[in-house]
Amino acid sequence: MRFKTIPDETISRLFPYMRALVCLNEKGAEIVSSNRLSKICMINSAIIRKDFSYFGEFGKRGVGYNVPELLAKIRKILKLEEYKKVALIGTGNIGRAILSYNYFPSEGFKIVLAFDKDVNKIGSEINGIRINDIQNAQRMILDQNVEICIVATPVDETSKVINMLSEFGIDAFLSFSPCRLNLPDNVKVTCMDLSTELAKLAYYSNKEIEN
Amino acid sequence: MRFKTIPDETISRLFPYMRALVCLNEKGAEIVSSNRLSKICMINSAIIRKDFSYFGEFGKRGVGYNVPELLAKIRKILKLEEYKKVALIGTGNIGRAILSYNYFPSEGFKIVLAFDKDVNKIGSEINGIRINDIQNAQRMILDQNVEICIVATPVDETSKVINMLSEFGIDAFLSFSPCRLNLPDNVKVTCMDLSTELAKLAYYSNKEIEN
Repeated sequence: MRFKTIPDETISRLFPYMRALVCLNEKGAEIVSSNRLSKICMINSAIIRKDFSYFGEFGKRGVGYNVPELLAKIRKILKLEEYKKVALIGTGNIGRAILSYNYFPSEGFKIVLAFDKDVNKIGSEINGIRINDIQNAQRMILDQNVEICIVATPVDETSKVINMLSEFGIDAFLSFSPCRLNLPDNVKVTCMDLSTELAKLAYYSNKEIEN
Repeated sequence: MRFKTIPDETISRLFPYMRALVCLNEKGAEIVSSNRLSKICMINSAIIRKDFSYFGEFGKRGVGYNVPELLAKIRKILKLEEYKKVALIGTGNIGRAILSYNYFPSEGFKIVLAFDKDVNKIGSEINGIRINDIQNAQRMILDQNVEICIVATPVDETSKVINMLSEFGIDAFLSFSPCRLNLPDNVKVTCMDLSTELAKLAYYSNKEIEN
C-alpha cells in the first residue's frame, strides 16, 4: 500500500536497476554510486536519485547506495521476494537456450516445468529439467502453481498454445513469436521481438551519427 | 528533416506499429482501423490516431488506414527502406535459433555473416548461411558494411566480443547477456533480457489481480 504513490515511470525503471544490482551483487560490489548506475542502465543519474528517493534513505552523499539493501528493497516493491514459477512450452533451439540459462534463480524465477509435443524429446532432460508431454500441461501447471509461461514454439503454433494455456488460467506469457494477433484480450503477452529491437538500434544509431 | 518534429514517444511507438503492419500485410490485409491496431499493439486508439496525424493523411474516418502505405511511410521515417546488414557472433542454441528465423527480410534486416570460434562449426552452414572463423571477423564485417552485430556468445565472453567489434567501428549491438557492465561508452547495446521481461510480466499481472 505504501508504494502506491511511486509513479509508473519509476516502476518501469526499477527493472533495469534490479538487473544492474543483481550483476553488481554477484560481483561482490557493496556500494554503487548513482553515476555508476547511470552508466550501466543508461538512465540519467538525477532521475536515478529522484527514483530512489521515493522509497526511503539508501544513499549517502558522496558514498553511494548499498547494493544488497537497494536490491532487496526493489525486489520487495516488485513483489519478487519469492521465486515465481515458470513453465516453458517448446524445446527447440530457443527453448533449449532458455533451459540452459543458469541465472534465473538469482533473478527471482525458476523454470519448474518444460513441455513439448515431440515424442522423441518427451522424457529427456535438459539442465536437470525433464521434458513433459504437452498433453499433460493442464494438470501439471495447475499442480505446480505456475504463474508465467514462456512460449517458445514455432511461430504458427504460438496463438494456439497461448489460447490453450489461458483456458487453464494462465494470464502472463513471454513469447518469441513476432505476432500477437488473435489472442484473448485478458492475457498479458510480452514478445521478445528481435526485429523490433534491431529496428530501434538501427534508428538510434543512425540518429547519433547525424548529430 | 521534415520528420524532426515527431516526438520521441511517437517514434518509440512506430516500432510496434511497424511490427503489427508487417504481420497484417503478410496476411493480405489492405485496411486496418485504429481500434484493431490498438488491440494488436496494446496502445490506446486515440494515441494511435494522434501519432499517425504527425505524418500526413492515411486514414479515412470509419474506414481505416491503408496497410501497405502506412507501413511504407513508417519504414521511411525509421530509415528502414533498405536492408540493414547484420552479423551474428556465436552459433550456440540462441545463434542457431536466430539463423533459422526466416522473417528478417520482410522486416528490413538481413543476416549476411555468422561467426564462431569453434573449429567444429566453422565451415558448416545453417539455413544457407556459412559459419566463419571469428578471427576473420574484422575483414569480413568491414567488407560487407555490416551495421549491427548480434552477440549470442556465452555470457562471460560478451563484453570481450563487443569491445573487439567496437574497435572495428561497429557501434550497435544486440546482446543476449544479462549484464552490460564494462562496455565502452560510445556503443549502443540492446539486451534481450529474459529475466527483466519476466519481472515486468509478474509485476503487471499481479497488479491486475489486485484491482
